[in-house]
Amino acid sequence: MTRAFNFSAGPATLPESVLRQAQAEMLEWNGVGASVVEISHRSADFIALAERAEADLRQLLSIPDDYAVLFLAGGATTQQALLPLNFASPGQTVDVVVTGHWGKTAIKQAKPYVNVHIAADGEPGGFRDIPPRAQWQLSPDAAYVHITANETIHGIEFRDTPDVGEVPLFADFSSSIASEPLDVSRYGLIYAGAQKNLGPVGISVVIVRRDLLARAGQPRADIFNYASHAARDSMLNTPPTWNWYLLGLTVKWMLDEGGVAEFARRNAEKARLVYGAIDGSGGYYRNEVAPGVRSRMNIPFFLPDERLDALFVSESKAAGLLALKGHKAVGGIRASLYNAMPVAGAQALVDFMHDFAQRHG
Amino acid sequence: MTRAFNFSAGPATLPESVLRQAQAEMLEWNGVGASVVEISHRSADFIALAERAEADLRQLLSIPDDYAVLFLAGGATTQQALLPLNFASPGQTVDVVVTGHWGKTAIKQAKPYVNVHIAADGEPGGFRDIPPRAQWQLSPDAAYVHITANETIHGIEFRDTPDVGEVPLFADFSSSIASEPLDVSRYGLIYAGAQKNLGPVGISVVIVRRDLLARAGQPRADIFNYASHAARDSMLNTPPTWNWYLLGLTVKWMLDEGGVAEFARRNAEKARLVYGAIDGSGGYYRNEVAPGVRSRMNIPFFLPDERLDALFVSESKAAGLLALKGHKAVGGIRASLYNAMPVAGAQALVDFMHDFAQRHG
Repeated sequence: MTRAFNFSAGPATLPESVLRQAQAEMLEWNGVGASVVEISHRSADFIALAERAEADLRQLLSIPDDYAVLFLAGGATTQQALLPLNFASPGQTVDVVVTGHWGKTAIKQAKPYVNVHIAADGEPGGFRDIPPRAQWQLSPDAAYVHITANETIHGIEFRDTPDVGEVPLFADFSSSIASEPLDVSRYGLIYAGAQKNLGPVGISVVIVRRDLLARAGQPRADIFNYASHAARDSMLNTPPTWNWYLLGLTVKWMLDEGGVAEFARRNAEKARLVYGAIDGSGGYYRNEVAPGVRSRMNIPFFLPDERLDALFVSESKAAGLLALKGHKAVGGIRASLYNAMPVAGAQALVDFMHDFAQRHG
Repeated sequence: MTRAFNFSAGPATLPESVLRQAQAEMLEWNGVGASVVEISHRSADFIALAERAEADLRQLLSIPDDYAVLFLAGGATTQQALLPLNFASPGQTVDVVVTGHWGKTAIKQAKPYVNVHIAADGEPGGFRDIPPRAQWQLSPDAAYVHITANETIHGIEFRDTPDVGEVPLFADFSSSIASEPLDVSRYGLIYAGAQKNLGPVGISVVIVRRDLLARAGQPRADIFNYASHAARDSMLNTPPTWNWYLLGLTVKWMLDEGGVAEFARRNAEKARLVYGAIDGSGGYYRNEVAPGVRSRMNIPFFLPDERLDALFVSESKAAGLLALKGHKAVGGIRASLYNAMPVAGAQALVDFMHDFAQRHG
């Protein structure tokens, strides 16, 4: 098999040009006589790479100067544990708005440290909509309000930044960061595992308003202290250097392609194609998410009979469309359409969907 | 420049055959139509890769069945914070034997959670020797005894496993794991950042006696719970898949080369060459570590005048010998000789040392 259209929810498809550069440089990078994966993170060469990656990410996302950017090992789940440790007093209330699986994970990680208050919960509605802002029960003394900007499993996305007043808004942007313009200044903190829109697995980005780093938080090891990482430019310990390198290449690729405005355009087009195929299928395909909050990144849908799911997955794979099996929590089919998925990939999926429906309708 | 002999302390040199395989497979791996960095950790293909890596590591290190093996994001410092959280009650005593910089780091990470008792401390002696076992002041009720098997900065290595009685012995083996045969059963827990002898940066290995996983530890997020990771085969969250892949290739390479017995032979030969060049230099080069505990992995040494250090580093770099600058904590020169450094690399260094001493003696 050669490279196919890969609809994996993450780790996910990467730009082919990024992979080709990583391939070309695998044995020797930048004239240093070694691979980038073999050199010290404290070498001048690597520090220059790291600084360039941060500068490019700041440009891509228009990150204001009063925000620090951290590059940390591990995924979003680790950050979900570090948020209460860094920004809440022991037992303090944090507000969480639950709109799918990852909001529940955030609660699970935070519960040992704080009083988690569910300010709004989409679960009674089957995670098919986001509870309207007017119904949220926010706590005036909360350490922060946590939302999941895009839920990869349930396919629900905030299409606007909610106004939560003076309490800082923290958001898990793992699966939608850099997919469209973002006003960072509306958030106290944004975090994202990189393995969807920012490139490789094994590294996370945390964008945090610097004044929040002065919060005492609660007793924790220095390696769990965001302020310590910020003070050392994310080199408090040995960072995941190769992953940082691949993230840098991916961010540079996004800038070269036209930045977030261009990706917003492409992502809207891809989503229009796939939701169009679902809604225009005469009920053969079903997506149950309220139209106003449908995710542009992850589109779960159902066939008329779940016994057709395995056939859809195997036939689409044979047609060069990979990883379309839905998450086990909801079943069905799921197409993830991150920045590195070209419009041609969405079109190929839509063509396959039409064909499949005709043959198995 | 082409590939040189790379003496970096970590991230460190990798086997060229491993890098060549990673290069060949960068765009498409194992016939799956995507790079290994682009596929789900929950795909059958990746799970097979992960299981093979664990099986190979178990074979390489002769890990008994009653030990779990975890593959975790982050480095050794993160594990130093997780040890007290998982294995000690709040405020319980843990014993630490300090033989260099990393033992001090282990204390720093543990202190917020437990009563750290320094059972023996090499610092008053300038970290030039390991305090004899008979002088250790062990606590009978300690949760564990922590040692650093090899100190990368000070160049000190335990050449025997100390007997600490019934209290489990925990050891940071980041820079010497797989360098020679190891009796895992003598330890309660062994951990290692992979970026020295096990391959890539961005992933750590924890080898832990399974009965210890039943300890209550102290309140912590699920993502900080070793037992949760063990129960999910290190796929509690998205693991650093590419790093795991490269680790697997490196472990397989070590098995193919003859396993730890063969690397023990090569490492002894490399250390003999470099220490021989130091000791045979008529005092031009100095290593101040007691001969019985000299590290085979990291050899720090000094020139007769520290003003020669920069010249040594620049001339050796021009001669194709990279990253020989000593750590800033001790100065001088440091040569790291991990498993992927061939004997020819140590010989090239020794030849350069002779030449340099003649020209600048």
